[in-house]
Amino acid sequence: MNASEFRRRGKEMVDYVANYMEGIEGRQVYPDVEPGYLRPLIPAAAPQEPDTFEDIINDVEKIIMPGVTHWHSPYFFAYFPTASSYPAMLADMLCGAIGCIGFSWAASPACTELETVMMDWLGKMLELPKAFLNEKAGEGGGVIQGSASEATLVALLAARTKVIHRLQAASPELTQAAIMEKLVAYSSDQAHSSVERAGLIGGVKLKAIPSDGNFAMRASALQEALERDKADGLIPFFMVATLGTTTCCSFDNLLEVGPICNKEDMWLHVDAAYAGSAFICPEFRHLLNGVEFADSFNFNPHKWLLVNFDCSAMWVKKRTDLTGAFRLDPTYLKHSHQDSAFNIFLTDGLFHVSFQHWQIPLGRRFRSLKMWFVFRMYGVKGLQAYIRKHVQLSHEFESLVRQDPRFEICVEVILGLVCFRLKGSNKVNEALLQRINSAKKIHLVPCHLRDKFVLRFAICSRTVESAHVQRAWEHIKELAADVLRAERE
Amino acid sequence: MNASEFRRRGKEMVDYVANYMEGIEGRQVYPDVEPGYLRPLIPAAAPQEPDTFEDIINDVEKIIMPGVTHWHSPYFFAYFPTASSYPAMLADMLCGAIGCIGFSWAASPACTELETVMMDWLGKMLELPKAFLNEKAGEGGGVIQGSASEATLVALLAARTKVIHRLQAASPELTQAAIMEKLVAYSSDQAHSSVERAGLIGGVKLKAIPSDGNFAMRASALQEALERDKADGLIPFFMVATLGTTTCCSFDNLLEVGPICNKEDMWLHVDAAYAGSAFICPEFRHLLNGVEFADSFNFNPHKWLLVNFDCSAMWVKKRTDLTGAFRLDPTYLKHSHQDSAFNIFLTDGLFHVSFQHWQIPLGRRFRSLKMWFVFRMYGVKGLQAYIRKHVQLSHEFESLVRQDPRFEICVEVILGLVCFRLKGSNKVNEALLQRINSAKKIHLVPCHLRDKFVLRFAICSRTVESAHVQRAWEHIKELAADVLRAERE
Repeated sequence: MNASEFRRRGKEMVDYVANYMEGIEGRQVYPDVEPGYLRPLIPAAAPQEPDTFEDIINDVEKIIMPGVTHWHSPYFFAYFPTASSYPAMLADMLCGAIGCIGFSWAASPACTELETVMMDWLGKMLELPKAFLNEKAGEGGGVIQGSASEATLVALLAARTKVIHRLQAASPELTQAAIMEKLVAYSSDQAHSSVERAGLIGGVKLKAIPSDGNFAMRASALQEALERDKADGLIPFFMVATLGTTTCCSFDNLLEVGPICNKEDMWLHVDAAYAGSAFICPEFRHLLNGVEFADSFNFNPHKWLLVNFDCSAMWVKKRTDLTGAFRLDPTYLKHSHQDSAFNIFLTDGLFHVSFQHWQIPLGRRFRSLKMWFVFRMYGVKGLQAYIRKHVQLSHEFESLVRQDPRFEICVEVILGLVCFRLKGSNKVNEALLQRINSAKKIHLVPCHLRDKFVLRFAICSRTVESAHVQRAWEHIKELAADVLRAERE
Repeated sequence: MNASEFRRRGKEMVDYVANYMEGIEGRQVYPDVEPGYLRPLIPAAAPQEPDTFEDIINDVEKIIMPGVTHWHSPYFFAYFPTASSYPAMLADMLCGAIGCIGFSWAASPACTELETVMMDWLGKMLELPKAFLNEKAGEGGGVIQGSASEATLVALLAARTKVIHRLQAASPELTQAAIMEKLVAYSSDQAHSSVERAGLIGGVKLKAIPSDGNFAMRASALQEALERDKADGLIPFFMVATLGTTTCCSFDNLLEVGPICNKEDMWLHVDAAYAGSAFICPEFRHLLNGVEFADSFNFNPHKWLLVNFDCSAMWVKKRTDLTGAFRLDPTYLKHSHQDSAFNIFLTDGLFHVSFQHWQIPLGRRFRSLKMWFVFRMYGVKGLQAYIRKHVQLSHEFESLVRQDPRFEICVEVILGLVCFRLKGSNKVNEALLQRINSAKKIHLVPCHLRDKFVLRFAICSRTVESAHVQRAWEHIKELAADVLRAERE
C-alpha cells in the first residue's frame, strides 16, 4: 500500500470509525458468540498472496464486530470506563506515523520532552505537591506507564532496592536473599489483584490489611499488622494505598496511614487508577489529601480522562529511586550494558530523563501526544465538566435505586460507581445478574463485598446520558421482578 | 469534538500522515534541538478553555517535528528498524475506535480469539514446532507482549516459579528465599541489557557466558559455567539464548546449548527480537534450528515485520507455566482476586485463554488487528520480499565497505546489520561517528565489540533503497577522509 492508497483507505477508515462511534448505541453491547467462534471463520494460515483492503474491511463487520464487547456503548456499565475520545484518536494516528521508540532522549527528543511537560500539566491539574513535578529540576518527576499494574510493580521494585541498600549499608554482611526473605509489603484487603501480583513478581510477602466498614484501610488495623510483623522479625518496606478501589470505589485513609508509612520508613505508593481523574475537580480534590506523604502516585488517564489506552500516569518524589531499581549493578554481572554504548555521542548525558530506566519495557511509543491533544481540545474546564457529568449520572442511578425498597445501596456513592443489590440472598442477586447479562441490553459485572454478592453499575461511556441510565434502570427493575417472581414460585 | 468534526479532522490527519511519510526523505534525520528545547515553547499549564484543532496541528510542525528523530527516514540506519506500514496504521485506527481492554475472553471475545489465531499464523510462517501453537488444543500457545524485555521477564518469572515448585515438591522444608538465593540464570555476554534487568527484577543471579570469536554462546563455555556454579551449590534454572544480538546480530549456538538446557532441566528462552522476522524466509529458517529445545521463544514483529510498535510475539510450549507464575497462591495472602469475581457469569471458564495471566500488565489493546491487516495486505510473499530487500541492501553496503581498504567489516553480515570500522584506533572511529552524527545527513549508533569501538549500519526504513545506501556510503567515505586527514595533521 502506497501513500496515495493510504490517503483513500485512511479516509474510508476515518468514516468507518465515525460511523461505528455514531452507531454504537444500535449494536448489542455484549456479543452472542460462544468461545472458539472465530477460528473457523478465517483461514488456518496467512495468505501467500495479498488480500484486498475491501476483503479485510468486509471481514471486520463479518468476523470481528460480532465478537466485540462494545466498551463505548452507552449501555456498557461494566468494569470501569476505558477512555475514548476523538482528539486522542487523532493523536494516536500521528503517534503511529512518527513511529519513534522513545527509550532515550536522543531516540526522539520531542517524545521524551513532551512527556515531561505533559506530566507536569497533569500534575498541576491535580494540584499534586510540587515535589512530584519535573519542572523545578528537583528530584521528582512523572512518567507514562502502560498500566497501573506496571506502576505498582515499578514502585515495589524501587522500594525493594532502596530498603536493601539501606539495610546493607548498615549491616554489610546481610545478603539480598536474607533481606528479601523478611520483607513485607501491605495493601488493604480491597486492593486490586495486581498488587498481589507485584508482590509475587518481586518475590516478597504481601499482606492484606483488613479494611473497615467502609472498605477503607485505617491506621489501627495497619498499626496492628506492623507491630505483629515486626515482632516476628519481618521488615515492613512497602505500602499500596488505594484511592477508589476496583470493587467498590472505596478510599483508604491516606491521612491516617501516610504518616505511619513515613515514620516506619516504608515506601508509600498511592494507586488511584480509576478515581484519580476526578481530582482535577476542586470539589473532589480533598480525596487526594495525604498524597504529600506518598513516595509515588499513579492513576490512569486512560480510564476516565479521555486519553485512549494506554496512558497510566505515575509520579515519584525522587526519580533516582526508580532509575536505581533498574540500574543496580551487582558484582556478579560481568557483561556491560549494550544500550548505554548506543548513547555515547548522543546528548543523553546532558538531559536527566531517559525513560527506559523508569519502566519495565525498553521501548515506548509517543504517548504524550494523546495527552497534549486531549488537554488542549477539551481544556481543563471541558475535562472537569466530563467528570462531573459522570458523577451526576451515578448519583441519578443511586437515587433511582434508593427509591425502590426492594434494593439497597451497598457502599457510599462518591464518584461514578454504584454498588447495589436486591435485599436478600446472594442467590437472588446472582440470578438477577445472570438475567441482565443474558438479555444483553446492558452489560454489568459483579463484585464480592465481604460475603455479599453485589452488582456494580459503573458510568463508562463518553456518550452515556440520563436517558440511558433511566432505561437501564427500568430494564433492571423488570428483570428483578421476574427474578423475584421466579423465586416465589 | 463530535463525529462530524472527527470526519473532517481525521481526513486532514490522514493527509498529514501521508504527507509526512512521503516527504520524510526531505527532513533532517536527526534533530538540531538541544536538551530542554521544548518546555519554553509551550505554556506551563494546560489551557482552561479549549484550543482549536488548527492551533494544535500547527504546533505539531512548530514544536514537535523539530525535535523528532525520524526513524522512518531512508537515511536512518541506527539501532534496529522499528516497523511502520500503512496497513498497520489503518488497523491501529480501528483498534483505537473499538477501544476494548482485552484482559479476559469476555472483555472482548474477538480481541482474545483473533490473537490466538494470528499467533498461529505467525508461528506457521516461521515453521515453529507445533508444540508452540494454540490450535491443537495442546499445551502451548502464543501471546502478544509489549516488548521483548517483557517477554524475557515473563519467561524468567515462569521458570523461577517452576523450579521453586519442583524443588519444594522434593524438599518441602526449603523456603522460597532459600531457593532464590541459589538460583542462577545465564545469557551470553552479548545479550541485551533487558536480560540483566529481568534478573534484577526477578531477584536472581544472572551470569554472562563468554561468547566465542563470532560473538556466539557455545556449549563449552556454558558447560564450564554450569559445572563451576553447581560445584558452588548454585542452582542453574534459566537460560536466554539470543538469535541476532543487538550489538552485532550474532547468533548463539542453539543446537549446542539447547540440549544442555534440557538435560539440566533449565528453562530455555530464545530471544530473536530483531532477527526473528527473517525466519519467515526459507533461506533464513535454519538460523532458528534448535528452537525445538526451547520452552519459550520471542521476537518482535514490531521491529522488522511491518507491524507497528507494540507487537512482541511470544510462544511457550506449556502455557500453564506462564499462567502459573502469576497465579501462585501463597498462604500468606488472605485477600481474594477481585478480578476473578468479575467473570463469574461470563463464559471465561469455558475458554482456556485469559491473556491477563500471560503478561505483566492487566490491560491490553486489540493488537492482533495490526497483524491481521499486515499479513493479509502484504501476503507471506510480500513480507518475504521485504525482508530479502533489506538483507540485500546490507550486503550491498558490506561490499562497498570491503572495497575500501581503509575499512574493515567486524562481524559476518547475516541479516540487515553491518558492523564496520576504520582500521585503526577507537579514537579515530569515535571521531568518525561524531562527524557523521553531527552532519545529520544520516544517523548511526555505535557499539563495543570486546575492546573495539564499532559503527553499526542497520537497514531500517521501509522505503530505503540502494540509492540511499550508496549516498550514505559516499558521505561516510568523505567524512572518513576528513577524519584521517585531521589525524595526520
